[in-house]
Amino acid sequence: MKIARFSSPGEDPRFGVVDGEDLVVLAGDPMYAGYETTGERVPLRSTKILAPVIPRSKVIGIGLNYYDHADEMGQEAPEFPVVFMKPNTTVVGPGDSIQIPPVEGRIDLEGELAIVIGSIAKRVRADDYADVVFGYTIANDVTARGVQEDDGQWTRAKSYDTFCPLGPYIETELDWSDLKIQSRVDGELLQSESTAQMIHKIPELVAYVSDIFTLLPGDVILTGTPAGVGPFTAGSTVEISIEGIGSLINPAVSRT
Amino acid sequence: MKIARFSSPGEDPRFGVVDGEDLVVLAGDPMYAGYETTGERVPLRSTKILAPVIPRSKVIGIGLNYYDHADEMGQEAPEFPVVFMKPNTTVVGPGDSIQIPPVEGRIDLEGELAIVIGSIAKRVRADDYADVVFGYTIANDVTARGVQEDDGQWTRAKSYDTFCPLGPYIETELDWSDLKIQSRVDGELLQSESTAQMIHKIPELVAYVSDIFTLLPGDVILTGTPAGVGPFTAGSTVEISIEGIGSLINPAVSRT
Repeated sequence: MKIARFSSPGEDPRFGVVDGEDLVVLAGDPMYAGYETTGERVPLRSTKILAPVIPRSKVIGIGLNYYDHADEMGQEAPEFPVVFMKPNTTVVGPGDSIQIPPVEGRIDLEGELAIVIGSIAKRVRADDYADVVFGYTIANDVTARGVQEDDGQWTRAKSYDTFCPLGPYIETELDWSDLKIQSRVDGELLQSESTAQMIHKIPELVAYVSDIFTLLPGDVILTGTPAGVGPFTAGSTVEISIEGIGSLINPAVSRT
Repeated sequence: MKIARFSSPGEDPRFGVVDGEDLVVLAGDPMYAGYETTGERVPLRSTKILAPVIPRSKVIGIGLNYYDHADEMGQEAPEFPVVFMKPNTTVVGPGDSIQIPPVEGRIDLEGELAIVIGSIAKRVRADDYADVVFGYTIANDVTARGVQEDDGQWTRAKSYDTFCPLGPYIETELDWSDLKIQSRVDGELLQSESTAQMIHKIPELVAYVSDIFTLLPGDVILTGTPAGVGPFTAGSTVEISIEGIGSLINPAVSRT
């Protein structure tokens, strides 16, 4: 089932289930209120699709989690996941602008499969990971590469406002074991890989990060990016696609 | 004025202003609702003092921001602040246990003056920093030193649950320019320095981080720790004191 968070002109955000060209409107946030519908149907094209979730606590990133990306960065595949964070203030939705700050160096896309956590989760066993996952969406872990090199620490490079587009939908039933993930800038293919190339798989990631900190409903775990990370500039359009979820498309602009 | 967030047996958290041995109870969260009182007075010793704020977005840390601490870590004083984050799930209050996870290496205290942000803040000019500051409190930026060395990235080492004690009070009027900051383990003095030794001062820090990301009311900026960071173990009591605010005391236990 694909869940969208959307707004119609003059209305507060609502949630809906994608059904063909329509959204079947839900009575509340399905993460908390289940799937009761209002009975209303809204044509998808008449709505603005929003980021499907705003994390109340954290977006957790995992570095170097595809074999080919570790290679291209000249690094060994890490024995344990390398954890970083992006603040919830980085999150924007489909179609929202990525605002490029006035910093030195490349601004890179990083297409990633994102896990949306659905319940309070602490020290989850890998075998039980599915119990705490609400669903999956697409993320662009935008990174200011020059800032990353200058700081050594990755926080600033990955934390500028708008540096975490999420969406368009949360797919609640996804076999994530072998999905094509692709990234394009103005239609040119930069990344094309299968999620089968992940080093640390989703059950292990949920177990690992929930041993560090309590996960809250709405927290998001980015599962790492494959090879082919590349730059984009103001005026270009960035697209991340994952089989079974859809396409996350964002224009890039210079920060004003 | 010193603001406490507190609970009485069987009641939800409330806010109060410290007045001698009492709290003058406020009608709401003063960050949003101002200082209207309910007229009630509660003896401080009959209440449990809680973390004075739960950040809705982020705890921002600044690395190597005291000259003597950069020295002891064998690093140059950085030209720009080095930014990291701790998730809001690290925050605990005075008297709450710091839970030591089963990891290799030292668990260190880092006593720090913490800035509590009071309004939405984006690209604030250093001269205007006071407009967006609600007040100041004490933080212990607990750090798993072995994990920090293993990961290179600081996130995991600083993000375990309970690794950010805050409190006891938010002082809304503080001249932070030259305050004694001291840390003790079981009464033994480890850190004793003046906030005058900060490399990047508070107006500059607010300007710097609010250029990266939007700050939200309740976000907390840790201003860095002086020399003398040192280890503590399960069974010990950790105390951070800052002149003009008070003492933040937490027992340490092994995570169960």
